[in-house]
Amino acid sequence: MKWYNVTDPAGRELDELAAQYHLHPLHVEDCRHRNQSAKIEEGQGYLFTVLKVMRLLPDGSLHAADLDIFFGSNFIITVEEEECPEIRGIIEQVRSGPGLQQRPDQIYYRIIDHVVDAYLPILDHYDDSIDELEDEALNSPAPPTLSRIFETKRALILMRRVLVNTRDVAGHLQRTESPFIAREMWPFLRDVYDHVARNLDMVEMMRDLLSGALDVYLSSVANRTNQVMKVLTILGTVALPALVVSGIYGMNVKGLPGAESPHGLFIALGLMACSTIVLLYVLKRFRWF
Amino acid sequence: MKWYNVTDPAGRELDELAAQYHLHPLHVEDCRHRNQSAKIEEGQGYLFTVLKVMRLLPDGSLHAADLDIFFGSNFIITVEEEECPEIRGIIEQVRSGPGLQQRPDQIYYRIIDHVVDAYLPILDHYDDSIDELEDEALNSPAPPTLSRIFETKRALILMRRVLVNTRDVAGHLQRTESPFIAREMWPFLRDVYDHVARNLDMVEMMRDLLSGALDVYLSSVANRTNQVMKVLTILGTVALPALVVSGIYGMNVKGLPGAESPHGLFIALGLMACSTIVLLYVLKRFRWF
Amino acid sequence: MKWYNVTDPAGRELDELAAQYHLHPLHVEDCRHRNQSAKIEEGQGYLFTVLKVMRLLPDGSLHAADLDIFFGSNFIITVEEEECPEIRGIIEQVRSGPGLQQRPDQIYYRIIDHVVDAYLPILDHYDDSIDELEDEALNSPAPPTLSRIFETKRALILMRRVLVNTRDVAGHLQRTESPFIAREMWPFLRDVYDHVARNLDMVEMMRDLLSGALDVYLSSVANRTNQVMKVLTILGTVALPALVVSGIYGMNVKGLPGAESPHGLFIALGLMACSTIVLLYVLKRFRWF
Amino acid sequence: MKWYNVTDPAGRELDELAAQYHLHPLHVEDCRHRNQSAKIEEGQGYLFTVLKVMRLLPDGSLHAADLDIFFGSNFIITVEEEECPEIRGIIEQVRSGPGLQQRPDQIYYRIIDHVVDAYLPILDHYDDSIDELEDEALNSPAPPTLSRIFETKRALILMRRVLVNTRDVAGHLQRTESPFIAREMWPFLRDVYDHVARNLDMVEMMRDLLSGALDVYLSSVANRTNQVMKVLTILGTVALPALVVSGIYGMNVKGLPGAESPHGLFIALGLMACSTIVLLYVLKRFRWF
Amino acid sequence: MKWYNVTDPAGRELDELAAQYHLHPLHVEDCRHRNQSAKIEEGQGYLFTVLKVMRLLPDGSLHAADLDIFFGSNFIITVEEEECPEIRGIIEQVRSGPGLQQRPDQIYYRIIDHVVDAYLPILDHYDDSIDELEDEALNSPAPPTLSRIFETKRALILMRRVLVNTRDVAGHLQRTESPFIAREMWPFLRDVYDHVARNLDMVEMMRDLLSGALDVYLSSVANRTNQVMKVLTILGTVALPALVVSGIYGMNVKGLPGAESPHGLFIALGLMACSTIVLLYVLKRFRWF
Repeated sequence: MKWYNVTDPAGRELDELAAQYHLHPLHVEDCRHRNQSAKIEEGQGYLFTVLKVMRLLPDGSLHAADLDIFFGSNFIITVEEEECPEIRGIIEQVRSGPGLQQRPDQIYYRIIDHVVDAYLPILDHYDDSIDELEDEALNSPAPPTLSRIFETKRALILMRRVLVNTRDVAGHLQRTESPFIAREMWPFLRDVYDHVARNLDMVEMMRDLLSGALDVYLSSVANRTNQVMKVLTILGTVALPALVVSGIYGMNVKGLPGAESPHGLFIALGLMACSTIVLLYVLKRFRWF
Repeated sequence: MKWYNVTDPAGRELDELAAQYHLHPLHVEDCRHRNQSAKIEEGQGYLFTVLKVMRLLPDGSLHAADLDIFFGSNFIITVEEEECPEIRGIIEQVRSGPGLQQRPDQIYYRIIDHVVDAYLPILDHYDDSIDELEDEALNSPAPPTLSRIFETKRALILMRRVLVNTRDVAGHLQRTESPFIAREMWPFLRDVYDHVARNLDMVEMMRDLLSGALDVYLSSVANRTNQVMKVLTILGTVALPALVVSGIYGMNVKGLPGAESPHGLFIALGLMACSTIVLLYVLKRFRWF
Repeated sequence: MKWYNVTDPAGRELDELAAQYHLHPLHVEDCRHRNQSAKIEEGQGYLFTVLKVMRLLPDGSLHAADLDIFFGSNFIITVEEEECPEIRGIIEQVRSGPGLQQRPDQIYYRIIDHVVDAYLPILDHYDDSIDELEDEALNSPAPPTLSRIFETKRALILMRRVLVNTRDVAGHLQRTESPFIAREMWPFLRDVYDHVARNLDMVEMMRDLLSGALDVYLSSVANRTNQVMKVLTILGTVALPALVVSGIYGMNVKGLPGAESPHGLFIALGLMACSTIVLLYVLKRFRWF
Repeated sequence: MKWYNVTDPAGRELDELAAQYHLHPLHVEDCRHRNQSAKIEEGQGYLFTVLKVMRLLPDGSLHAADLDIFFGSNFIITVEEEECPEIRGIIEQVRSGPGLQQRPDQIYYRIIDHVVDAYLPILDHYDDSIDELEDEALNSPAPPTLSRIFETKRALILMRRVLVNTRDVAGHLQRTESPFIAREMWPFLRDVYDHVARNLDMVEMMRDLLSGALDVYLSSVANRTNQVMKVLTILGTVALPALVVSGIYGMNVKGLPGAESPHGLFIALGLMACSTIVLLYVLKRFRWF
Repeated sequence: MKWYNVTDPAGRELDELAAQYHLHPLHVEDCRHRNQSAKIEEGQGYLFTVLKVMRLLPDGSLHAADLDIFFGSNFIITVEEEECPEIRGIIEQVRSGPGLQQRPDQIYYRIIDHVVDAYLPILDHYDDSIDELEDEALNSPAPPTLSRIFETKRALILMRRVLVNTRDVAGHLQRTESPFIAREMWPFLRDVYDHVARNLDMVEMMRDLLSGALDVYLSSVANRTNQVMKVLTILGTVALPALVVSGIYGMNVKGLPGAESPHGLFIALGLMACSTIVLLYVLKRFRWF
């Protein structure tokens, strides 16, 4: 059994391997164009798989790197499409296991298993984010919350697409009885399928919760505006009668009741208090609050 | 017929049973990792099922505990993955029935039937919640309503996922003619399937109603804001002309009409009343209210 | 041919019939638990059907009562699960026809046909409601409209569930070539299926219109708020300059232009008018309205 | 070949034809009840089709009239369910062609082709409406826009239902190899199917655009409210400090700075200007605008 | 092998080719009516395909031109339905390759490959647009943003429809084992299918992001309104007590506390400050902000 790990997909090594193992030109081309979808295709004498290795970048965004695998009955070729610590790590981990003593299908299973296992911590990260966003949306809705909701949405849309395609890969492995995969591996491949399907379930749940968080944000803002409006209206209800009464008593006219009396101030203040109380009563009575 | 109930999935008992009945390593591993999805898988000489036992925690949130079942033609192994009063209760109830005299498929049916029956009171609890939330959203929309709507949504999303997977388990039991299940049990398994499907129907209806409650909340808040705005505008319509007139009569200028007359106050008040009436008429006329 | 109509599902009559015709215990149990879904199941020597008879209660809500039917080659058993005038009416109508001279499949068709026909006036009632709600949402959006939209939504969700299940019953009748149903009845059963499918179409249309009515409600309220805000702003635009000018002329300071002149009032009023006009011009110019 | 055109579905002519050609009673009944769905059913010796002829009424609403067709190997019966100029026009057009010299399947194709062709101008009408509504929603959102959006939605829901059913009719014609339809007609029937499918595509696109127009309406109104609020707040920011300062200088107290000075007015106006500038600076600084 | 390129679909050249290669009249008609959907149909002795060539017009809108292809075992006919630089470019590119030495299926593949490749830059253009729109919606929501969101939505709806139909074409090519397509071409056609499917994925993602951008817009505007309202309310909270106090001290009444004292101004200002502080405290205390 031979395992070739190609780290420079543009180099000659891949061309030589393609010639040696009769790899289809379209598959070789796929290895040289990044941003392929996860997929599996049958070639003559081998299976070709593209896997997506996900990574959280320091700025919080999500990056997907391509890992391509060709394997037949007695060889396996892995192609690292870019320098990516996650891909490197997975290859090292599988290598450091009982690597070359194993059959290609066993190595293939271990790689795909590692790739899929690496999705879970990323999903957990977003799950925690959504919990926080939900709290923020309810308690202190502000533009940065909105911005983070949108970024998380974008990441989940990308994650979902990767998972759907990976699920199709795992489903295809399960369904077709490929001559390159021993029968004893089937339950393990079914296990990979189950993992991906459960991850996909989780992403759907998170998308649902996230859209709920956005609704909460909007409702929360509307509620706050309503609250602020009420305060303004209550202020107005108290202040406007006082202003009108004091304005009237400030007029340069004759005949203001009590203007000449020493209790003028109390008469005026009394009028203010009365009109405010009447106003509050009327608003209450007609249930305008 | 032997029935083993394993309460410590990490212990040696499970290893010994696995060796004795040739349980697949992946299935044993599933018993030791919580948070599996409900599922059914065929092993060699047995069926492996993961069921989710739901429980309302005192703080109102929903908790799902795993109950694993292996059964073959002459044995049944149940694994309680965590100490959970609900799982314990179900095992006790089935035990206290005509337990060991029965065939494994009969015991299996009785366990799954109890697990599914226990979903109904939880769904009823949420159904009542939604009725209340709807009333609150309509009559007194406030942030706690929003928060509870969101929590209920979260619980329904979880419940739905459990039910979808459980329905798949029941569907698989119905479809495949497993050698471990006697033909007379089929109508009973179909009954379980119908129960789960009806529960799922209920969850879908509740999700629909809940999203309606959120719409009502938002509309209700918008309506209240509108109401409050109207009050403020009416206040302004009445007070502003009065303030302008009293401001004018308060100016230190000459030539104020009636300022010198003993009826000055009434002239000014009359002007206020007139301008307010004209303003109200204009607003009414152009249908600005 | 025998027709048994059981009005007390808890009574002994049903037990005796179950023994006589070998009815499955789960089916007998279904007759004794209300709130079954509409469904059809094949028993040994008979077909078991649960139908939902819908009724508009005086308070405007929708009630579903269960009507169970067992029929074989030479008998029909109908079970009225509760005292419900609609069920009673349907049984009477079918009885008063050429009842017992007919075959069980003909009676069965006539019952199911009556049950389905009775859905239409209920749907028409909701269709009219939605027309009204739409007008109200557009012309006078108020909390009762919101409340009625929600109640109608609830009723349509229930109606939809009943219709989906009834359609499955009718579809099953059409598909399976049951030995208890004569071939000449097939076009009639297809007709029932078409009726239910058309009703379901109608419910989907109504749900769509109802969600539109809610959108209109929200948009309508937003529009009104906007309208009210504009009035308030125009009021402010006119009143504030006047208040500022009159406030300035009301100050106890020296040097107010024209304060000593006999035309002081006109100078001040002129200033008010000018500042208001300038303000309106500026707002217009920068398209702030 | 005989072609009967029945203009009075309630009359005796239809009964006589039903007897002569053994039409199924349920089909004859369908001809006498308006508001059938478009559908195709196989009778003994004939095919029965219900088509919906759409018409824009002068008030802008959409009306659907039923046109029923029975045809067998040597006859065709068309039933005009109501007096409708569109149905009449279609019958006349087909008649004025090489009418009676043709086979029934050719006439049938020409009728269905005309009915389907007549949908296009109606869809174009709504497409133009949506363009206008979109512009209105963006530039001058007002209740009539909302009302027209809703009416268009209602019409598209109806149109969609008619098209879905008509597509099923065309699909059924394509799939079943009816003995009454010559093989050479197949590409033509496929063409009808394609037309209907493309119309349905168009309706889906229009529904999508219409729901977008509603979103735009709501966003546009929210934006305008925001705009109006800003104007009000800017007015307040400028006027309130001026009012407070002039209020202070209007007080009947001693010690007002500069009250006795001949430059009192300028001192006061300067204070007003300063406080307004400070306020604007603070608002700007904390990004409250 | 003959390759005919028809640039005037209305001309006689097409009629002659139709006669020579027995093209079906409906297919020839399709070439003469623009705005066909992308589709593939089997004729006698040839395959007929309609492809949509997309182009971004200078005003930013999206235009679709039809390119029709007939090909059999020894001929290929391409029809440019309108003068379109994109169609022209594609034809030229394929021509300038090893054109006429190739088989019709190879030329056909190269044309469809070019058409599909040309979709990608258009999708990238909209992807960039959505990024910008999202930023605008968050940071400076204004009507032009709304208008551009809607235009992009319209373009994506059109693009999606074209891609769905093109995917069906590619899927049909993959599934049917047409005698006109050599077996070695199959992986290449599968590659075209994959490209279209990935484009469609991208469009779905963009639609999802765009609807998110609209939600952000609405939330952002609501937030800004809330912000503006708060400013207005804080202004009111500070100014109204000051106005009421200064109004009171401006009244022509006796008994104003401190009115006669030389510290009258400070007493009044103190009262203003106190009442504002009390008001702010009360609002804070009852969490009205």
